Amino acid sequence: MIGQLMYSFIESLITIPRSITGDGVRLSLERIKNDHLLALQMYEIPTGTVIEDWVVPKEWNIVDAYIKNSKGEKVITLADTNLHVLGYSDSVDKHVSLKELNKHLYSLPDQPNAIPYVTSYYDDTWGFCLSQNQRDQLKQESYHVYIDSQKSVGSLTYADLVIEGKEQKEIFFSTYICHPQMANNELSGPAVATYLAKWLSGRSNRYTYRFCFTPETIGSVAYISKNFDKLQNIHAAFNLTCVGDDRAFSFMPSRKGNTISDKVARHVMANQIESYKEYSFMNDRGSDERQYCSPGVDLPMVSIMKSKYGEFPEYHTSLDNMEFITPFGLEHSFNVHKACIEILENNFKYHTNVLGEPFLSKRGKNYMIIGGKQNADSDSAQLILNIMTCCDGSMDIVDLAEEVGIYALDLIPIIQSLISEDLITPIESF
Amino acid sequence: MIGQLMYSFIESLITIPRSITGDGVRLSLERIKNDHLLALQMYEIPTGTVIEDWVVPKEWNIVDAYIKNSKGEKVITLADTNLHVLGYSDSVDKHVSLKELNKHLYSLPDQPNAIPYVTSYYDDTWGFCLSQNQRDQLKQESYHVYIDSQKSVGSLTYADLVIEGKEQKEIFFSTYICHPQMANNELSGPAVATYLAKWLSGRSNRYTYRFCFTPETIGSVAYISKNFDKLQNIHAAFNLTCVGDDRAFSFMPSRKGNTISDKVARHVMANQIESYKEYSFMNDRGSDERQYCSPGVDLPMVSIMKSKYGEFPEYHTSLDNMEFITPFGLEHSFNVHKACIEILENNFKYHTNVLGEPFLSKRGKNYMIIGGKQNADSDSAQLILNIMTCCDGSMDIVDLAEEVGIYALDLIPIIQSLISEDLITPIESF
Amino acid sequence: MIGQLMYSFIESLITIPRSITGDGVRLSLERIKNDHLLALQMYEIPTGTVIEDWVVPKEWNIVDAYIKNSKGEKVITLADTNLHVLGYSDSVDKHVSLKELNKHLYSLPDQPNAIPYVTSYYDDTWGFCLSQNQRDQLKQESYHVYIDSQKSVGSLTYADLVIEGKEQKEIFFSTYICHPQMANNELSGPAVATYLAKWLSGRSNRYTYRFCFTPETIGSVAYISKNFDKLQNIHAAFNLTCVGDDRAFSFMPSRKGNTISDKVARHVMANQIESYKEYSFMNDRGSDERQYCSPGVDLPMVSIMKSKYGEFPEYHTSLDNMEFITPFGLEHSFNVHKACIEILENNFKYHTNVLGEPFLSKRGKNYMIIGGKQNADSDSAQLILNIMTCCDGSMDIVDLAEEVGIYALDLIPIIQSLISEDLITPIESF
Repeated sequence: MIGQLMYSFIESLITIPRSITGDGVRLSLERIKNDHLLALQMYEIPTGTVIEDWVVPKEWNIVDAYIKNSKGEKVITLADTNLHVLGYSDSVDKHVSLKELNKHLYSLPDQPNAIPYVTSYYDDTWGFCLSQNQRDQLKQESYHVYIDSQKSVGSLTYADLVIEGKEQKEIFFSTYICHPQMANNELSGPAVATYLAKWLSGRSNRYTYRFCFTPETIGSVAYISKNFDKLQNIHAAFNLTCVGDDRAFSFMPSRKGNTISDKVARHVMANQIESYKEYSFMNDRGSDERQYCSPGVDLPMVSIMKSKYGEFPEYHTSLDNMEFITPFGLEHSFNVHKACIEILENNFKYHTNVLGEPFLSKRGKNYMIIGGKQNADSDSAQLILNIMTCCDGSMDIVDLAEEVGIYALDLIPIIQSLISEDLITPIESF
Repeated sequence: MIGQLMYSFIESLITIPRSITGDGVRLSLERIKNDHLLALQMYEIPTGTVIEDWVVPKEWNIVDAYIKNSKGEKVITLADTNLHVLGYSDSVDKHVSLKELNKHLYSLPDQPNAIPYVTSYYDDTWGFCLSQNQRDQLKQESYHVYIDSQKSVGSLTYADLVIEGKEQKEIFFSTYICHPQMANNELSGPAVATYLAKWLSGRSNRYTYRFCFTPETIGSVAYISKNFDKLQNIHAAFNLTCVGDDRAFSFMPSRKGNTISDKVARHVMANQIESYKEYSFMNDRGSDERQYCSPGVDLPMVSIMKSKYGEFPEYHTSLDNMEFITPFGLEHSFNVHKACIEILENNFKYHTNVLGEPFLSKRGKNYMIIGGKQNADSDSAQLILNIMTCCDGSMDIVDLAEEVGIYALDLIPIIQSLISEDLITPIESF
Repeated sequence: MIGQLMYSFIESLITIPRSITGDGVRLSLERIKNDHLLALQMYEIPTGTVIEDWVVPKEWNIVDAYIKNSKGEKVITLADTNLHVLGYSDSVDKHVSLKELNKHLYSLPDQPNAIPYVTSYYDDTWGFCLSQNQRDQLKQESYHVYIDSQKSVGSLTYADLVIEGKEQKEIFFSTYICHPQMANNELSGPAVATYLAKWLSGRSNRYTYRFCFTPETIGSVAYISKNFDKLQNIHAAFNLTCVGDDRAFSFMPSRKGNTISDKVARHVMANQIESYKEYSFMNDRGSDERQYCSPGVDLPMVSIMKSKYGEFPEYHTSLDNMEFITPFGLEHSFNVHKACIEILENNFKYHTNVLGEPFLSKRGKNYMIIGGKQNADSDSAQLILNIMTCCDGSMDIVDLAEEVGIYALDLIPIIQSLISEDLITPIESF
């Protein structure tokens, strides 16, 4: 159900021509704001602004692009897919030989029907991307190459949304919005972010939630730079990327590897999905965790993904499309992150209020009144005693769940019952 | 020898009808006091007293009980074994059909010659326990069921003994006294406790020793509640249960699993017995360590057992009898606990008094005067150098023993010799 | 090249008759001083001086020694090798039967052509060492045994050299000089020590370097006793022993096993040599680390050796000679210790100076400008990002090297480049 809504969300945004700057990003964010997240705040940073070690580049917008053969037929046209133009390509309007044209073409010989996604943010050139099949059909003739793009003083666009909770402590979700016409490695992240934000907006939450939608890399560096003080309040953080397909579950731990986000994510994945592959931060990182986990920033950020960027053949090609992702895959990702939130919202340490074991019989908690050999304690009573044996103030709800061998989500109502009977007292766990 | 004394001790007490309250407990403790431990202190807590999460129940005493068949023959009689009556059974005196009787009978189809031990402390009912073989002989006829028991305002009885040592720090032994007519899972514990206390009473000890004899569970909760301040002095603690048979060695670690009691017990077991099974506190606990190790009480309590409660077929049946336990098994348990005490009494950390290695030759400690290839240092000299190399103030005698590869009991005289030669100095280890 | 120089150094000293005291030690040290280390300081401690648990023994010097058969032929003579006389042998000049002579002979039946090295420092006796082959040729006749030695009030001799660096913190090298006529287990250590000291004397160093040349055991105890305050400045320490052959690499860790010396040595050995055997301090120690690592002294001292003392058949015999060691083996040892020094000199922790990742493209560090699927980040750019991701102030250069998977020696120029670009800042690591 919610998977289908997220799938439709992606369909409605996929053809907007996004890059790290420009109207494509702006339009995508406005659509999200107007259709879903009315409180979304948008920000612009002017071209040339110094952001930490970086400088905001010129803004790039694409108007039209095609390659015509000598008969005047468009053999490649932007109208088919935004991927056909090299990201940040210069404008061009001239006739070139096939030999000259080939210097500006990008294709994948090993994946002949895939159009690659290629960019040239910091080197001025022009170019087209096309499938190897398309390229193989080009003949020795003159081609009219036409790209109408603007690279001009403008700004870098990003957005965020803060949902206030009872605590100043925040749970942070980042996602990026800078890739053209790709599904898993672009719009699955904003889709799950948007629907998590909508779900949280309708609830009373313990934590404050912060969602940011930025261009990858320079956008997240900018977000860190502009919000450094606020980020000190972050208790847990999740990067939403590649959360749309139905082929695998993947986990990128935080740099430190043992933060509360890592702990909760691993517990949820161990209990809620069949299996997943854990990657190495040092060897395999590649999305905005590179910025948010960098030394001095040190957010406890993990990524719970389906097929991880760089690890699926369709990655960064036209095959990462609406057929690659599924409503079921999106919903699965949504549910896993929702479970992480539910556990974090209910995560405390606990101390027992009684010396020795409690006298459960008087509470009628399925504790067998007849003792002895024939009548073992019932499982539920034993579970309660096991839980209370762990309530020494040192264990949070995930520790408790793992010690007594159940899923923390299932432990929440039992813990609440023990609190209501005044058998245990929660202590802040952060 | 001492095993035979403990075996006789058990024989002399086994037919006394004990329960968690009542004259059976009182009589058992008086016998121990008068025959063995004159300084044993007895305590009574009135019915209705609130003890932490518990309330002291009515006191229960059994006078007589039998089932007569229609011919007036006693087919079941308390005179045969105290186990025949459901613990805390109500009185009854009426004629019932076999069908009605069956609702009040407890037997074990899988162990047809064993009478189960069953109690009903908190549910008012009456009942008999019998072997399946006995039950199978009951015919369709009218039975006269007769139980003369008293459940009345009285008190809960327990006892303790404190043997003062040079230190206020205490070593604590708990055992329970609330089961009727069973040997391993009842009287083996009080037997070993009594003989350890007698041995310690005749010595000058470093530590103060505390022995308590309580009904299980509510009795240990009561002991904790009444002695909470004194328990803060406890340095090591042992629960004495199931220490009488000759079939296995079992170990229940403390809740934290790495206390001084765990360390000494594991070292003794690794060196003094062939093999043992270590159980899990979280999954397998079941005796008074549940109370003494509970959060907020936190005693460093372990149980070094023979066949563990719940793990042997005779457990909680009439087969846990004088044939199940042996003098040899009791003595083995006594010796293992004695070894733990000897090591604790001699447990210090040490710092060397010399810079560099000592010049052993001048002390004539079998250090080979002729060096070089043919004449390796003698083993004893090498052992001394190994020990001194570890005397950096960080290792206690068990650490030292494990580092140099010998049993701590064997290390004690060597350490004493090094101290007497002023080569090392002991430091308090607690 | 330097291996050949060290080999010649050993050749020039090998026939000097050394023992733990006496003119042999004195002459050896004077040669090293005059030929190589002009700043070497020599010290004498008088016979009878109390040094910690030891007393300086009488000084021993050997003048001549032989065994003549009944024909007056010298069947054993000191002129052949210093090993023929028992170390610290008394003088003797008498005729003895073969039976009597045999009580004073030392040979190795299992190594019939090896003359053993045997001493008797603390038991007054006389003796000869010879090969089993030589011994087997002795006949039933009268022998003239002649040893002209002096055991008299004198002193214990040792030397040290301090090369001042920018820091008061010191790196310490110990080696021993007390064995007669053996190559691997004696002069290889002083040879590598001397050439490391010469190399360091010609450089500007961060650390101060201290080299000591002492008789083993009592000499190192004396060095500790006389220099205890200065040793508090030691940051890393290496014992140079058995560094001359070409058969194996061996490692003796420090007592604590995880000091900076252990860390650097293990990293160098893992990266610079094919394989090595790590021994156990507790079970296998045997050289001056016994003194320098003893409790209360606690130097972070390791030994990086070739064939370890006690582990090669030639050990403590005449077969540990100039054929056993090689220029290549000596140079290999020199280079491994030089690598340890280079890493220690460059060992800092680092913190990044930028928030988020740096913008490498602007620095032209081989960072690919064209992104996307076809163009992975270049390896060198990825390595720089990996390094910077670790610059959180917690890792030293060895940690960094191991985390990013390269040799610390290769990391030094990269780190220096990052510092020069102001991307990272070093922090003192001790």
